Amino acid sequence: MLTAAILGTAGYTGQETLDRLLAHPELEPVALGSDSLAGKPAAALDPRLNGRLPRFVPNDEAGASGADVIFLCADNEVAAAFTPPDGAVVVDLGGTHRLRDADLARRWYGLAPGAWSYGLPEVSPPEGRLVANPGCYATAALLALAPLREDIDGAVVDAKSGMTGAGRSLKWSSHAGHVLENFSPYAVGAHRHAPEIAQTLGFDVTFVPHLLPVRRGLLATCYVRAAADLRSLLEEAYADSEVVRVLPDGVVPELARVHGTDAAEIGLFHDEATGTAIVICALDNLGKGAAGQAIQNANLVLGLAETAGLRLQGVSV
Amino acid sequence: MLTAAILGTAGYTGQETLDRLLAHPELEPVALGSDSLAGKPAAALDPRLNGRLPRFVPNDEAGASGADVIFLCADNEVAAAFTPPDGAVVVDLGGTHRLRDADLARRWYGLAPGAWSYGLPEVSPPEGRLVANPGCYATAALLALAPLREDIDGAVVDAKSGMTGAGRSLKWSSHAGHVLENFSPYAVGAHRHAPEIAQTLGFDVTFVPHLLPVRRGLLATCYVRAAADLRSLLEEAYADSEVVRVLPDGVVPELARVHGTDAAEIGLFHDEATGTAIVICALDNLGKGAAGQAIQNANLVLGLAETAGLRLQGVSV
Amino acid sequence: MLTAAILGTAGYTGQETLDRLLAHPELEPVALGSDSLAGKPAAALDPRLNGRLPRFVPNDEAGASGADVIFLCADNEVAAAFTPPDGAVVVDLGGTHRLRDADLARRWYGLAPGAWSYGLPEVSPPEGRLVANPGCYATAALLALAPLREDIDGAVVDAKSGMTGAGRSLKWSSHAGHVLENFSPYAVGAHRHAPEIAQTLGFDVTFVPHLLPVRRGLLATCYVRAAADLRSLLEEAYADSEVVRVLPDGVVPELARVHGTDAAEIGLFHDEATGTAIVICALDNLGKGAAGQAIQNANLVLGLAETAGLRLQGVSV
Amino acid sequence: MLTAAILGTAGYTGQETLDRLLAHPELEPVALGSDSLAGKPAAALDPRLNGRLPRFVPNDEAGASGADVIFLCADNEVAAAFTPPDGAVVVDLGGTHRLRDADLARRWYGLAPGAWSYGLPEVSPPEGRLVANPGCYATAALLALAPLREDIDGAVVDAKSGMTGAGRSLKWSSHAGHVLENFSPYAVGAHRHAPEIAQTLGFDVTFVPHLLPVRRGLLATCYVRAAADLRSLLEEAYADSEVVRVLPDGVVPELARVHGTDAAEIGLFHDEATGTAIVICALDNLGKGAAGQAIQNANLVLGLAETAGLRLQGVSV
Repeated sequence: MLTAAILGTAGYTGQETLDRLLAHPELEPVALGSDSLAGKPAAALDPRLNGRLPRFVPNDEAGASGADVIFLCADNEVAAAFTPPDGAVVVDLGGTHRLRDADLARRWYGLAPGAWSYGLPEVSPPEGRLVANPGCYATAALLALAPLREDIDGAVVDAKSGMTGAGRSLKWSSHAGHVLENFSPYAVGAHRHAPEIAQTLGFDVTFVPHLLPVRRGLLATCYVRAAADLRSLLEEAYADSEVVRVLPDGVVPELARVHGTDAAEIGLFHDEATGTAIVICALDNLGKGAAGQAIQNANLVLGLAETAGLRLQGVSV
Repeated sequence: MLTAAILGTAGYTGQETLDRLLAHPELEPVALGSDSLAGKPAAALDPRLNGRLPRFVPNDEAGASGADVIFLCADNEVAAAFTPPDGAVVVDLGGTHRLRDADLARRWYGLAPGAWSYGLPEVSPPEGRLVANPGCYATAALLALAPLREDIDGAVVDAKSGMTGAGRSLKWSSHAGHVLENFSPYAVGAHRHAPEIAQTLGFDVTFVPHLLPVRRGLLATCYVRAAADLRSLLEEAYADSEVVRVLPDGVVPELARVHGTDAAEIGLFHDEATGTAIVICALDNLGKGAAGQAIQNANLVLGLAETAGLRLQGVSV
Repeated sequence: MLTAAILGTAGYTGQETLDRLLAHPELEPVALGSDSLAGKPAAALDPRLNGRLPRFVPNDEAGASGADVIFLCADNEVAAAFTPPDGAVVVDLGGTHRLRDADLARRWYGLAPGAWSYGLPEVSPPEGRLVANPGCYATAALLALAPLREDIDGAVVDAKSGMTGAGRSLKWSSHAGHVLENFSPYAVGAHRHAPEIAQTLGFDVTFVPHLLPVRRGLLATCYVRAAADLRSLLEEAYADSEVVRVLPDGVVPELARVHGTDAAEIGLFHDEATGTAIVICALDNLGKGAAGQAIQNANLVLGLAETAGLRLQGVSV
Repeated sequence: MLTAAILGTAGYTGQETLDRLLAHPELEPVALGSDSLAGKPAAALDPRLNGRLPRFVPNDEAGASGADVIFLCADNEVAAAFTPPDGAVVVDLGGTHRLRDADLARRWYGLAPGAWSYGLPEVSPPEGRLVANPGCYATAALLALAPLREDIDGAVVDAKSGMTGAGRSLKWSSHAGHVLENFSPYAVGAHRHAPEIAQTLGFDVTFVPHLLPVRRGLLATCYVRAAADLRSLLEEAYADSEVVRVLPDGVVPELARVHGTDAAEIGLFHDEATGTAIVICALDNLGKGAAGQAIQNANLVLGLAETAGLRLQGVSV
């Protein structure tokens, strides 16, 4: 067994990463970092966690635990200040190391880009031991659009996400009174996932995220114009993937089928009246959009089976 | 008091129309048509309805009741077969009479267009006593786009609606197991509201509706390219409206604020990276998207105060 | 017109009280108190509020505005420190003045009981100009049980409420990640509404509140043993009420029908196997459970029509 | 590998049973019965099901497939007419074979009780190869109360369930317009799970189920009076269980932690004012309340590891 440490275990992405590690055949969680829970038993986070797991330690200590792989799930500030130990594989689930352009990295994250590779396994597999895990919106948009990028020069990406995408911190936008029985766009024309999408596609897209009144799940409806046979491009891109499923003609992606999983669904449609193609991607923002992809990236860098520990099986209703 | 009849009172739009009539200072519901509830007291529909109201009658009888205004809330088949009584104002909340183009009307509704005017008060006020009430999606898209139509030549309309838009009939797509904690697009590139939107704008739009896991509310995110000052166009269009509210710069429309009301909210944003303008309209699909607009149309044709009986006041959380 | 002031307008009960005042034929809101919004226009709370309303003022200033009636919607601390102006009617929507027993008042609210009457109009109409508005859970339990109190000597009250009952402040228990797609009891055997219920009934009840994943609405399922004809007792108690509706045999109360209203529904059932009667009350925690009842109390003390400004009409779906 | 057949695979409990079989190390699904999908590939039920699985066959054919274990997930009528093949283990997830009393079995299910054992593993492990799988409500009530049954002589069971408990068939009570943003009791004093609970406890309970606006999850709040040390009784009963978790003092059960799992949580509280103990059990109605328990029962009868194939690990948020 290889060993794993998590920084920021008490957040949504940290807990979900731990969730995958508990079922991973080759990775054992040996250090659970959390500055707020340090010193407490694992069950302090969740009564489902029992005596097999070690107590929480401060994030610093988890980072220095000597684990083979470190998952950075803490705030961007923690990730920005983190110095990867020699030899360790590090997967950053936050945004800090995603943008490679110096100006963009400084504008959106306040720091210079480092030597991290952008690890979107189906599009740009991780290179080296430092991996920037893509944002949830960017993952959905890129799974839908990257296979088509040679044939399009722009896109409208209208995306909708469940509330866990905004994390566990207390703020009005995550208050149940704002989220329940409501629906609204946010950060219109000003979301940091827009440059992240553009970086991989090679052109800008119009990106508007919306907040769905659900816990988990993300669906991106992408509008493009292209003369190419987009279905062939998509099917070829994911022909060998166990993670991304291109749906048959006429079947629409839906959150219920990706809920709680590390898979993604893609559907393709055409609007004859305007000649527009509509590529729709659904995934779980905490699965393929975060923790599942982080494990997938770690597996690739560590030379393990790509989908070890992932939640891909099952047909839960 | 003028008198009103409803055909199809037991459906969502019928019940909401009745709801407005109960609070209307000039219109009194005198005939409640429902083929399924005929002969039963009003309370059979809802325990809140008490002895003041007449018993249900068959739709045919309600149509022949001699009421001053008739609201057609029954299935499209009932509306298609309905012969408006001489002199009566008739507002059809269904789709039957919305499309004026003979080919389109036949393709989508299976009949030739009649002498009905398309009554979207802020854009195309009703003319004559036969009024086709716009669809909920079309209302949102047109409130957002009609004031800009001289300056744009296309749009992507990504729309999301609560489940009451699909009515009370039993079908899998309205089953709680499909709707709850789920989200998905439907009728992609093939929804009958698309030609309805095009008819008023004068050009086709790409329209994709999605089903939100909420009872009520609809939000349309519209993407356009234009050189004009769109904010001025929108603010001028609705400067005198008590129904449509153009939000200040930076404020996003949200369902919670239009829930249960007959108002609409419009927000305008710009994506600098791509030069795209984003016009977002939120309304209640059963309010401004159906019953509220039907009452507004009836008021206009009958010469009553435009907003009599509408739910426009209040700041319910 | 009489004048009204609100302290704590920016909270849920404050906003809902303002909502009723906007539709009240005899009461005009002249002072909107909010320490956080002081100096800002009314629209800062909600874009639906327009120029007709005055700007927000500090709560102190609103309390000294000389209004005929003052609604205390701020935190219990503000209410505890508030000195009612001579001659003003004051309705406290918080818990501070509900308990009359000195020990209980000190234990639960940290202060001695004052000269406030407990204003539950159908059970104990307000006396004098200082009114303690009942808690939402207590209102539901007492509407169900008070008419039966001579014939029972105990009850189990299993109650479920929407999340607005917990207010707008930021805390984990109101975070969407705790509320959405979840359900749990809280404050089991330790909720301050239990002694409030006991105070009016004359005996203790077992009270367990649960948090529903909805914005609004509260349902209390009450279990009692009694030999009396409970249906007659309930129907007599509410025969003349426009607010409380005893449902016909076999009809169950539901949140959807009281959502957004100031009404309450009561259903009565019998479990033959155990000889237990089940009295179920549904209401909107922000309507009859808070702001609606506050207006009703104010109307009674001011000598206005009891239901002026209340939301009792309508059959919204 | 042993082989398994499912009758009624297209229903909620059938699909969830298949879901567990897909992850089961010792059981292989070899016959998928569904009268509505007969002849179609497995993917016709759900795009996640791929080519590894056989096509659907009629239920009759699935029953005669010679599988080692047969899961009856079809309507009660199918189960009542089903003749277990010699030697096969049969687990009936419906209600047909749960009641042993002849009068009760006839009253609630219209047939005489057969030679089926009531398989609630922690309370009454299955005996013989024909197993009646308990109802979801009965499972929760009995996990909470069975360990206490010597010390109590009655209980109020106030239960709340997600909508999947009502199945996939089309009816108004499962329509999203009834379920979403709503909450109501149903079958008050008249639910067939009440005699099922009484059968195991040895006395009647007052049982009221309510419909929660969530897909999955069930919570039963049970009120009892007892002098015994109930915590010890509960902790002893489940000390060795991997499935049932007695929570520490002060921790409340919640749906989120059992969602999608085959585990159950139990919390114990005391109301000092009335001397009432409150035992609360949460589980997933489709997991421990149906498919998970069916697999657990099958494992026990087949001599496999009790929890093989169950979803017990993980801390998904």
